[in-house]
Amino acid sequence: MREKVFRDPVHNFIHVNDPLILELIDTREFQRLRRIKQLGVANTVFHTAEHSRFSHSLGVYEVARQIANHLERFPSQKLGDGGWKVAERQVLLAAALLHDLGHGPYSHTFESIFKTDHEKFTQDIILSKNTEVHQVLAKFDEQLPEKVASVIAKTYPNKQVVALISSQIDADRMDYLLRDAYYSGATYGTFDLARIIHLMRPVEDGIAFEQKGMATVEDYIVSRYQMYEQVYFHPVARGIEVILTHLLKRSIELFQEQKQQHLKIEHFVTPDLKPLFEYNVSIEQYLDLDDASILENINLWRHSSDKVLAELSMRFLDRKPLKSIEIRPETRQYLAKLRPLIEDAGFNIKYYTAENDSFDTAYDLYHPTAKHAKTQIEMLQPDGSLAELSTQSPLVQALTGRSYGNARYFFPAEMLMEQTTGDLMAPVYQEFQRYVHNGALTEIENEILD
Amino acid sequence: MREKVFRDPVHNFIHVNDPLILELIDTREFQRLRRIKQLGVANTVFHTAEHSRFSHSLGVYEVARQIANHLERFPSQKLGDGGWKVAERQVLLAAALLHDLGHGPYSHTFESIFKTDHEKFTQDIILSKNTEVHQVLAKFDEQLPEKVASVIAKTYPNKQVVALISSQIDADRMDYLLRDAYYSGATYGTFDLARIIHLMRPVEDGIAFEQKGMATVEDYIVSRYQMYEQVYFHPVARGIEVILTHLLKRSIELFQEQKQQHLKIEHFVTPDLKPLFEYNVSIEQYLDLDDASILENINLWRHSSDKVLAELSMRFLDRKPLKSIEIRPETRQYLAKLRPLIEDAGFNIKYYTAENDSFDTAYDLYHPTAKHAKTQIEMLQPDGSLAELSTQSPLVQALTGRSYGNARYFFPAEMLMEQTTGDLMAPVYQEFQRYVHNGALTEIENEILD
Amino acid sequence: MREKVFRDPVHNFIHVNDPLILELIDTREFQRLRRIKQLGVANTVFHTAEHSRFSHSLGVYEVARQIANHLERFPSQKLGDGGWKVAERQVLLAAALLHDLGHGPYSHTFESIFKTDHEKFTQDIILSKNTEVHQVLAKFDEQLPEKVASVIAKTYPNKQVVALISSQIDADRMDYLLRDAYYSGATYGTFDLARIIHLMRPVEDGIAFEQKGMATVEDYIVSRYQMYEQVYFHPVARGIEVILTHLLKRSIELFQEQKQQHLKIEHFVTPDLKPLFEYNVSIEQYLDLDDASILENINLWRHSSDKVLAELSMRFLDRKPLKSIEIRPETRQYLAKLRPLIEDAGFNIKYYTAENDSFDTAYDLYHPTAKHAKTQIEMLQPDGSLAELSTQSPLVQALTGRSYGNARYFFPAEMLMEQTTGDLMAPVYQEFQRYVHNGALTEIENEILD
Amino acid sequence: MREKVFRDPVHNFIHVNDPLILELIDTREFQRLRRIKQLGVANTVFHTAEHSRFSHSLGVYEVARQIANHLERFPSQKLGDGGWKVAERQVLLAAALLHDLGHGPYSHTFESIFKTDHEKFTQDIILSKNTEVHQVLAKFDEQLPEKVASVIAKTYPNKQVVALISSQIDADRMDYLLRDAYYSGATYGTFDLARIIHLMRPVEDGIAFEQKGMATVEDYIVSRYQMYEQVYFHPVARGIEVILTHLLKRSIELFQEQKQQHLKIEHFVTPDLKPLFEYNVSIEQYLDLDDASILENINLWRHSSDKVLAELSMRFLDRKPLKSIEIRPETRQYLAKLRPLIEDAGFNIKYYTAENDSFDTAYDLYHPTAKHAKTQIEMLQPDGSLAELSTQSPLVQALTGRSYGNARYFFPAEMLMEQTTGDLMAPVYQEFQRYVHNGALTEIENEILD
Repeated sequence: MREKVFRDPVHNFIHVNDPLILELIDTREFQRLRRIKQLGVANTVFHTAEHSRFSHSLGVYEVARQIANHLERFPSQKLGDGGWKVAERQVLLAAALLHDLGHGPYSHTFESIFKTDHEKFTQDIILSKNTEVHQVLAKFDEQLPEKVASVIAKTYPNKQVVALISSQIDADRMDYLLRDAYYSGATYGTFDLARIIHLMRPVEDGIAFEQKGMATVEDYIVSRYQMYEQVYFHPVARGIEVILTHLLKRSIELFQEQKQQHLKIEHFVTPDLKPLFEYNVSIEQYLDLDDASILENINLWRHSSDKVLAELSMRFLDRKPLKSIEIRPETRQYLAKLRPLIEDAGFNIKYYTAENDSFDTAYDLYHPTAKHAKTQIEMLQPDGSLAELSTQSPLVQALTGRSYGNARYFFPAEMLMEQTTGDLMAPVYQEFQRYVHNGALTEIENEILD
Repeated sequence: MREKVFRDPVHNFIHVNDPLILELIDTREFQRLRRIKQLGVANTVFHTAEHSRFSHSLGVYEVARQIANHLERFPSQKLGDGGWKVAERQVLLAAALLHDLGHGPYSHTFESIFKTDHEKFTQDIILSKNTEVHQVLAKFDEQLPEKVASVIAKTYPNKQVVALISSQIDADRMDYLLRDAYYSGATYGTFDLARIIHLMRPVEDGIAFEQKGMATVEDYIVSRYQMYEQVYFHPVARGIEVILTHLLKRSIELFQEQKQQHLKIEHFVTPDLKPLFEYNVSIEQYLDLDDASILENINLWRHSSDKVLAELSMRFLDRKPLKSIEIRPETRQYLAKLRPLIEDAGFNIKYYTAENDSFDTAYDLYHPTAKHAKTQIEMLQPDGSLAELSTQSPLVQALTGRSYGNARYFFPAEMLMEQTTGDLMAPVYQEFQRYVHNGALTEIENEILD
Repeated sequence: MREKVFRDPVHNFIHVNDPLILELIDTREFQRLRRIKQLGVANTVFHTAEHSRFSHSLGVYEVARQIANHLERFPSQKLGDGGWKVAERQVLLAAALLHDLGHGPYSHTFESIFKTDHEKFTQDIILSKNTEVHQVLAKFDEQLPEKVASVIAKTYPNKQVVALISSQIDADRMDYLLRDAYYSGATYGTFDLARIIHLMRPVEDGIAFEQKGMATVEDYIVSRYQMYEQVYFHPVARGIEVILTHLLKRSIELFQEQKQQHLKIEHFVTPDLKPLFEYNVSIEQYLDLDDASILENINLWRHSSDKVLAELSMRFLDRKPLKSIEIRPETRQYLAKLRPLIEDAGFNIKYYTAENDSFDTAYDLYHPTAKHAKTQIEMLQPDGSLAELSTQSPLVQALTGRSYGNARYFFPAEMLMEQTTGDLMAPVYQEFQRYVHNGALTEIENEILD
Repeated sequence: MREKVFRDPVHNFIHVNDPLILELIDTREFQRLRRIKQLGVANTVFHTAEHSRFSHSLGVYEVARQIANHLERFPSQKLGDGGWKVAERQVLLAAALLHDLGHGPYSHTFESIFKTDHEKFTQDIILSKNTEVHQVLAKFDEQLPEKVASVIAKTYPNKQVVALISSQIDADRMDYLLRDAYYSGATYGTFDLARIIHLMRPVEDGIAFEQKGMATVEDYIVSRYQMYEQVYFHPVARGIEVILTHLLKRSIELFQEQKQQHLKIEHFVTPDLKPLFEYNVSIEQYLDLDDASILENINLWRHSSDKVLAELSMRFLDRKPLKSIEIRPETRQYLAKLRPLIEDAGFNIKYYTAENDSFDTAYDLYHPTAKHAKTQIEMLQPDGSLAELSTQSPLVQALTGRSYGNARYFFPAEMLMEQTTGDLMAPVYQEFQRYVHNGALTEIENEILD
């Protein structure tokens, strides 16, 4: 029996001896995930959050494997009894391992700029006959590619398998919370994984949790809440993400200008990015991309003759995030006063400011949007009935339906500079700071300043 | 008082409020370290070891800060009393933060291929008037660049400061052991940092440790031993490193061929690598390089028209390490038999095999070579005398002078393939496997195989 | 400088070098705390929660020491500026160390039975001229006993010192939450102590926390909530506590009967318990008591000629807790049906049943009762104003004012026995189980059972 | 399926669902272990090491359960193939749970004073028809008591089962090292339990470990070495143990004097200790004893009219350990000088001094004595052969055969008092300190002192 042992600080050891999984790990497409960071630019704030989608994917497999072992204690005996079907093990483990296969570099920024969809790519990679992943899956079972892709698409008939890959407590979320906490050092993100798995019971429409484990489930929900508040929506990381978005937008504009002018553009971007810039990328071309593809171009753009592109690249590489303030309905009116001041100070507001509306869903992977129906968490009562979690816990109730994040307005940090005597811009900055004070958008009466 | 708080899982929080350190962190040269992995290719074996030199450097600063706070309890009262000079604090902290500034991407491989020296670059960056780091240091104290550079060069007059940055138990090693253990998941690497610091005493020629803390020092030495044996010299990571070395060598050969033929070479490598390939790189050019500079080129070389370069790039990206066996004096003779067989199987031995002699010092950063005199660890006795560590501990004595690593011969994994009937190469593989059996270099008599 | 190092898994190392604290630790009265468990009978449910009040007290000292070091960064410059007065350090540390000095064995049960008050005893021991603790304090400063006792009594003029010993986030609670979590294995109880201390700011009426640390304070509050729900109010531990209470009551009754009958009672209890049984215990006699004083008597009572005392002692020693159900206003009516059934089954309801009203305050140490005004937690805003915690956090708001625990009715586990054919008591048990079903007090209609 | 979940910080959760184990845990004899500390008096030095033999025993069961699950992957197919016999599971688990059943309070001191043998008592309790443990075992399988007792006696025919309970790496040692480390805070004691279990392979004569896991086994051996050096043989704990030994000896002498004089002795010791003092204790009487039985008597003896007993009891309760120095062959001669000086200072050397020869085996449970043959640790090579551990590891070789502990001479701390002018004893102390200096036994020339 061939076995491969991965040391993993989150799960201690990951022992793989399923031949299918071993071969999937060795495919080109899966190995690519080593070169894509799990949390994109979050390492500019949590400097140790450098972990890859590879380690996360392996972790999701491990969580799924532990869950499968546990569920085998509650096997289905006859049709419709809600038991676990042991034959689903392989589909579950493969889907767990492969669920992030279609992610691009700096995933959410990348998708919004280049109009790609990582869930679609994941399915396409699995279904495309040319990929190693497809070939390995099909070698083990011809129907496996179709089955695994449909789990990712949430159309697979077995709802338990779907719930274990995509629901409010699934193998994906459980690994990423623990892993992001471990690597960022955000101690809030920990919860008792072994206990949660022990509490799982297969039920007809998915997976429920034994009522006696309420405290453990509460702890998971609180951890998730705190990771969103503290890590995933951190305003400074969003201030870097705005820069990344704007510099990519600027590079697309320049690319298209050059194209229209029939200039040679090969010097402008490395060849692997071209299909992206032409909005026409094949699966094979997509699989050539990793974090280095983007990052090395930014390295080169630092020396671009286009001042905006060069300056934004420098800000991204040297970590000069935009500053931001929260916009509330009652303070939104002041934005109109800010924009001309920023232009007066010499910044093109198109590239140097942003409202964060586009970033609300920046970490959508982690937070199902309202458009998609969420599966509730159900607690299994001693008498066999189910009760929705928030009806059982005042703690969870307090957090239910709370929308994470906030609307923010981003602008150059220079606008908050202390006024130096003799600085020509001093009066502009001073006026700006009448509206942005103590980290909030507000208006300070003139007389106070005088 | 401005303060910046870094969450760091190894030290929990790193609180920086020294204005000099705050400004140094914000320099372009220090921010570059975010984009260079601490352990190079080790993440191909320890898949979570993705941490950067930035986080390590910050960690060394934090260890140095804790040490400085501790040593201030033992201040020098008069010349030559062996006490700690409080005025050295700033030099110590700056040197701790900046000690790795000159590292290039994939440091050790890079240096051996491109003939660079990271310690030299560290000093040059600090001393060059054009760098932000230099300007910040000089702004605080004109002599600071010179002082900090001389600590790195080990020529600084205060031996305590030098010992805290470069010795067998210094701030650098203590952070990297803990950090590499945390990120690789290798539990062996842990030891009691707070206790070791508490045991430190300034003495005339450096830093000693109180005898009563022997067990803690032993634990550190054993941790270090195990990290070398288990992580730093892992044969599979070396099997990837050989591929990286050979593909870079091949790319230099191709670069020089094209140059001699006066071909346009701009398409071949991205512009930032050219100075390297011409062995003529300025400080400014050097500071443009990071892991992505190398990695993106390998991404592009995957599609090179040169078969060897393309194939090695694929092996590197898709993680197909060379296999290896230990060479002992008595088995070295068999290598002569192996080489022609590898060529018969269609591999150019120049690119597909290696002896590891060049890798003995691959992690030289972590293991002072014989050429450099090592500072002994001294234990402070109750009567004030010093005793060298290994004279006090049978455990340490057992490990003293033991050379880490071993000589290995690397070759393509294909040579170990099971023989498939009808495979033309089967007899070659079979002959090879007479010499490489059960992971060892040996000779199996023909009759046994028959 | 004499220093003593205590290894402590909660705080890693506790370094004591203050001569006053060193001498206080060595006193007879403080050493007695080694022999009193922190959590009384909780180890019957959390089998590893065996830690002593000694280790907790040392831990509170350590937390206070870390706080004092932190607060010294914000010294008072002039009267009424809200700064920390460095001269209070010694009073703070001594009060932290000694705050639990007056605890008896199995504290809360003990107090309700023997009519003692541990806070009163703590103050008396400190103020009594005959104790070693008093003598050590007075040796260092004649006014110290009075000052330290008044901190315990919450009458000390410096409100910051009082808040650090007795408030919603004080050194006492912070140590016991971490310690009880560590020793019980209840992972919920952890929070980031170093961070909380870092957030502390002295203000005129006590101690506030910087607003930016909201997540850390939230985490502490959630931890506390979960420790109460999961550990401190665990119904099975209360089922053991009821037994302890009843067996002590029974022993007092027997003691008094024998006394009235002028029987020799020296054989009945060990001499150290006699003053307690006579409700007339001096400080010196009180200090002779520890957990073993109670436990060894129960060991002996197992062989008592009084059947009730012997049987309850056996239940206590062999861990046979009473079972319990929650009483809600609408189900309280059924209790009247249960009591006669329990008597029919042969149990004296005086000794074998209880309502838990007396246990609501069983862990009062951990939960300030309504009678005492609680100090709010105040968050320090960027502009220097204070805002009460729950106004800033929806999570805390959800938990504010929630009363912990519940009213429970305790009865012998035998009443829930499955009915064995031929058992004379079977119909009684069956009738009882009509009212106690699935862990709840309810009434099941006859027809359902039939 | 009834299941009981124990939270345990060392193993996270211990899930018990084997009906035999569930019933064994509920027996009177097993519950008694809750009231006996695992490490006796060690908590006087490691103040948090308060854990019980109950939690250790449960932990050994859990380790054995994990091992049994692992070994079931290597089942015996035919006689003599060295595979694991699945049918041995129940014997293994029961023996693991019950292996410490016969321990008395303060085990090793107790045994040497009262001439008992805990291994013998363990077997007797299992075999005696009157114990609950026996009855539960026999109910499940009539032969089980005999089988389990023979595992404890190491005479059970299946050598694998015996090795898992008593060998150099067995379930007992693995739990106690981890547990003692967790509760004492001695971080040295940790090693990777899950990995060690994963490396286990059943072989004909016991259990071997896969060669590839050498580093993990090394780590275990080093942990064990450090726990002995740092925790189990700590000289201060031995200084308390000497006091306990001497006070128990003194109490036996007084007991026998009173008996010879036909005095009423019931007041002198609590009734449960009498059989011990008469060296005639039945199983049932033995099972009445726990730590409180000894401790409460010492509480009472503090007020004894016998000065020596009262004074030693005070020293024990108030933690006044004897001091000690190491005796080496070349310094043993000075002991003859010390004894009369100690007598001159007013101490009876019979009760106030000791050589530690009797303590060499104080933690014999943890360290098989030379008399008993030790099972070697065997490493399973890739070719199926076995190699003894120390031949494979220079680290282990360095520790092999090293005898732990040392010979020490114990004496009252008063002898090291600084000389106060006017103290009558000053010259005696001064003379003593000529021989005991800087923690070592030596002789200082008169002229130096003068």
